[in-house]
Amino acid sequence: MNRLTDTERAAMHTLVRRAHEASHEPGKAGIAAALMKGDRVIAEGVNHVHLLPDPTQHAEIVALGRAAQALGSADLSGCTLLSTLQPCEMCLAAMRFAGIDRVIFAARQQNVPDKYFAFPHLSLCDFLGPESRFVALGGLLEDQVLDLYADGQE
Amino acid sequence: MNRLTDTERAAMHTLVRRAHEASHEPGKAGIAAALMKGDRVIAEGVNHVHLLPDPTQHAEIVALGRAAQALGSADLSGCTLLSTLQPCEMCLAAMRFAGIDRVIFAARQQNVPDKYFAFPHLSLCDFLGPESRFVALGGLLEDQVLDLYADGQE
Repeated sequence: MNRLTDTERAAMHTLVRRAHEASHEPGKAGIAAALMKGDRVIAEGVNHVHLLPDPTQHAEIVALGRAAQALGSADLSGCTLLSTLQPCEMCLAAMRFAGIDRVIFAARQQNVPDKYFAFPHLSLCDFLGPESRFVALGGLLEDQVLDLYADGQE
Repeated sequence: MNRLTDTERAAMHTLVRRAHEASHEPGKAGIAAALMKGDRVIAEGVNHVHLLPDPTQHAEIVALGRAAQALGSADLSGCTLLSTLQPCEMCLAAMRFAGIDRVIFAARQQNVPDKYFAFPHLSLCDFLGPESRFVALGGLLEDQVLDLYADGQE
């Protein structure tokens, strides 16, 4: 489905709030992610890279791990990944390994510093590939988060 | 440096052994990774995807997290990532976010099932990009691990 549901839109509003809250907490970056299954948010996460420290603990990775724990399986097929920032290559790949084929995000790559991506010469289109195997809806509530990412902090 | 050091070669021999051991343990896949700083292995990891379960816990992600804990920093610049299998897109990006620009691995993408990659239409060359920013040395001891990956298990 290429349109947002009402519950997805509501969940994104919550995530934007979480991202702003996290941006004021020591060691946490203003990035928040969640996993939905049907109409239910089953896991949330904020960026823990500098909190732990662990360079792999982006908000999406934290949320994916919690969702897998909640469901008792590494297979998260049918879930949707939501994030306040376009998932980087690490998180996109993690999502696909988990069998997820739907991602919704606020800030888009073209509107944030390159630093948020490991391979900024690649774009989402490169990952979608010749046979698009997942739906990516970006730009939702983007104007409410771009200030969080203007300076490339994490 | 585009050549292997003696200690890197020795560490790869150890990793190949670990991968074979892990392949016999319940829930663990026959994939092993390590982080070296200079001549010293500072962290190791095997695949924990089905053990936890957590789809993000590839051997490299486990090892990167442990290395960051060991060094007390998410910045692993100067370290080398070693793996028995060419790191997938998730692990490559994680490595780059950690500031790592040297990776050594055994089995190469073209010799293992597509299943080990989230975006098999992309190759290592696509990630290296126009200005190659990291050194990737693949194929070392490859013949000793290919049987582990023949059926695409993890």
